Amino acid sequence: MTEKVSIEKKVLSENDRIAGQIRQDLSERNILCLNVVSSPGSGKTSLLERTLESLGNELEIALVAGDVQTDNDASRLMKAGGKLVRPIVTGGACHLDAMMVAKALDQLDLNSTDLLIIENVGNLVCPSSYDLGEDMKVVLISTTEGDDKPLKYPAMFRRSSVMVINKTDLIGTSEFDLDRVKANALQINGNLTIMETSCRTGDGLEKWVDWLKDEVSAKKQVE
Amino acid sequence: MTEKVSIEKKVLSENDRIAGQIRQDLSERNILCLNVVSSPGSGKTSLLERTLESLGNELEIALVAGDVQTDNDASRLMKAGGKLVRPIVTGGACHLDAMMVAKALDQLDLNSTDLLIIENVGNLVCPSSYDLGEDMKVVLISTTEGDDKPLKYPAMFRRSSVMVINKTDLIGTSEFDLDRVKANALQINGNLTIMETSCRTGDGLEKWVDWLKDEVSAKKQVE
Repeated sequence: MTEKVSIEKKVLSENDRIAGQIRQDLSERNILCLNVVSSPGSGKTSLLERTLESLGNELEIALVAGDVQTDNDASRLMKAGGKLVRPIVTGGACHLDAMMVAKALDQLDLNSTDLLIIENVGNLVCPSSYDLGEDMKVVLISTTEGDDKPLKYPAMFRRSSVMVINKTDLIGTSEFDLDRVKANALQINGNLTIMETSCRTGDGLEKWVDWLKDEVSAKKQVE
Repeated sequence: MTEKVSIEKKVLSENDRIAGQIRQDLSERNILCLNVVSSPGSGKTSLLERTLESLGNELEIALVAGDVQTDNDASRLMKAGGKLVRPIVTGGACHLDAMMVAKALDQLDLNSTDLLIIENVGNLVCPSSYDLGEDMKVVLISTTEGDDKPLKYPAMFRRSSVMVINKTDLIGTSEFDLDRVKANALQINGNLTIMETSCRTGDGLEKWVDWLKDEVSAKKQVE
């Protein structure tokens, strides 16, 4: 086991080195980078489709979409108007790592990009351990998943800056309690910015879009 | 990377050795063992609560409930009438392994047990790689997760014997198509037994319970 742990440390430190390069490169170009994480089916791709529809004419948005198999998500993002989209098919791996992202970014012309969004593999555990060079992680949780998830998968919520509670149109169809999920998440990470969205009805998307615009502006003002 | 792969192989082969011991031990006692897997929040614990309510007086059911953090699921199962319940808190690990299960089983008196159900960590990727000594894996997918999940996370559906489509009461609240999810799953694994349940309304639970009873009987008749 010690041998396994030391190898894992080596892999993670190599990952961190590459993530550091990505972060430096993107920062020099004042590109805001988000790493979007969640369980499978929480609505990451739907949120990004809505984001492209709302902001695609205003901001230059590049997207990297990771999946274990299929490039379904990347196809959906291109259909939603994404011009700079790269799929990463991990072929079994349960998370994106910085090397995969670096290779995908090599295929994208980021010269006029304002915002880079990395859609991670649907997995509430493993992606929390891999820095991809992002400015922040955005964790989605859907209202059908149960309000105890922040307590059961704490690392992801601890390492995220934003929690988006998605599928608010389905509140009332299960025992999910909005106040309780917020309290549980803030117990794990008191600094979380929390937003509520329904990608189906559009509720709450304005706040998400405004927040994105503010963060992109702030990144541009960094010297 | 080669070094990492060879260490992973070593860890997996040690896992398989322990899983083999568990399988042999359970088979000698004619105990049916299921490994229940899914995304976070698909309803594994709810299905097991309903199972205990329906079958708890008829069969002796032992349960091992895995979570990254908290023993919430084990507590819920005990409240639902589970007499032989052990939590496994993985403390960060994204899956159960055979050693964790072997240690949990050491704490349970299985002398009159008919059925052992292992509730894995909510993760549609990593648990597919770890044999726990089960007779079969049962994968849950909820109707709010999207009907493309079998294609995007194929290993789990390929290695499962049964797919339970849960939260059928929420069909119609999203684009989820029941025929499409079945076709996608059968494209990955043509041998899947497919059932549909709503733990909320009780729809479909009778078929699940009957299937369980048949499998338990079949296991008892094995020489």
